[in-house]
Amino acid sequence: MSSYHSAPIEKLIHEFSKLPGIGNKSAQRLAMHVLKMSKDDVASLAHAIVQAKEKVKNCTICFNITSEENCRICTDSKRDKSTLCIVQEPKDIIAIEKTKDYRGLFHVLQGAISPMEGIGPNEIRIKELIVRLQKEDVSEIILATNPNIEGEATAMYISKLIKPSGIKVTRIAHGIPVGGDLEYIDEVTLSKAFEGRHEI
Amino acid sequence: MSSYHSAPIEKLIHEFSKLPGIGNKSAQRLAMHVLKMSKDDVASLAHAIVQAKEKVKNCTICFNITSEENCRICTDSKRDKSTLCIVQEPKDIIAIEKTKDYRGLFHVLQGAISPMEGIGPNEIRIKELIVRLQKEDVSEIILATNPNIEGEATAMYISKLIKPSGIKVTRIAHGIPVGGDLEYIDEVTLSKAFEGRHEI
Repeated sequence: MSSYHSAPIEKLIHEFSKLPGIGNKSAQRLAMHVLKMSKDDVASLAHAIVQAKEKVKNCTICFNITSEENCRICTDSKRDKSTLCIVQEPKDIIAIEKTKDYRGLFHVLQGAISPMEGIGPNEIRIKELIVRLQKEDVSEIILATNPNIEGEATAMYISKLIKPSGIKVTRIAHGIPVGGDLEYIDEVTLSKAFEGRHEI
Repeated sequence: MSSYHSAPIEKLIHEFSKLPGIGNKSAQRLAMHVLKMSKDDVASLAHAIVQAKEKVKNCTICFNITSEENCRICTDSKRDKSTLCIVQEPKDIIAIEKTKDYRGLFHVLQGAISPMEGIGPNEIRIKELIVRLQKEDVSEIILATNPNIEGEATAMYISKLIKPSGIKVTRIAHGIPVGGDLEYIDEVTLSKAFEGRHEI
């Protein structure tokens, strides 16, 4: 690329292309868009990036993102404190919150166990979960880690760790997505859907 | 979204989602990524955005982007000054430069004629093109505007405007893309490919 662009544009394209899901072509399109934006809009974008990084931290209770000491969910007195939903990332909380069905609290692991990537149980927030369970009066743990190898391994690990304490441990169901077409569902999901069938 | 996020994250997601090709979901993923980046990387990204906007301007000759008075192509003494390729946007120059086939100069219109969007010939850099042609010794104009309604209309308009002056005016060829599958090519392109057939 270097011979086609002036240095500041090259630098910006390089910076954009480091973002997830942004290839060289998208980075170029974004950079060109920045040149067409008003100076105020550009300043506003740059400011928002820096501010988000500076102001946003992790909730000291559940590790969700927040700009306060604790997140909105942990500080909400109307939430059901007896249920704890375990997720990998803060964005999973957003997805679950959108369903408006779950009224309990969360715990963000900030990752999943992955021997391939050298991430063991000590690299994610399992210790902190155990400490929470000793202090808080939790009656059910819902494991909502991702439905892939790492997520399943993490769910199994936590389940084995907690079950002896007598707390109910559940895993969210696998099955066919609502509105999905049976024909296009992979066999593993389909077999899980049969396994999890229930009377209607 | 407002109830799920803290304010600085909401703001950043909003800013990202204003960029082209970035929907709400991508904006959210990008914002989450920013939180995971190092403070230095975040500062570097924000700085690159502001710098690109501040430093980059348009070449006073061809309206390509540059951080100098004139762009690298206009100031390159080895380029063929008798040929001028007309494009809509600076990014089109990059695409053409990558072919390494074209050795002439460029002229960026900064848009295309589009009556639907209220863009007439005076809103794009056609006046400046005419002035250039009076000053420079150009023997061929290659119209490389986009192969859509606006690009074709613009090419037609410029062609009619310039032809009386005796300068040779050409339009880049339409046809099937190399490596493309005939089955998936639209009829208009295919008929253009037949129209433009040549002996081999």
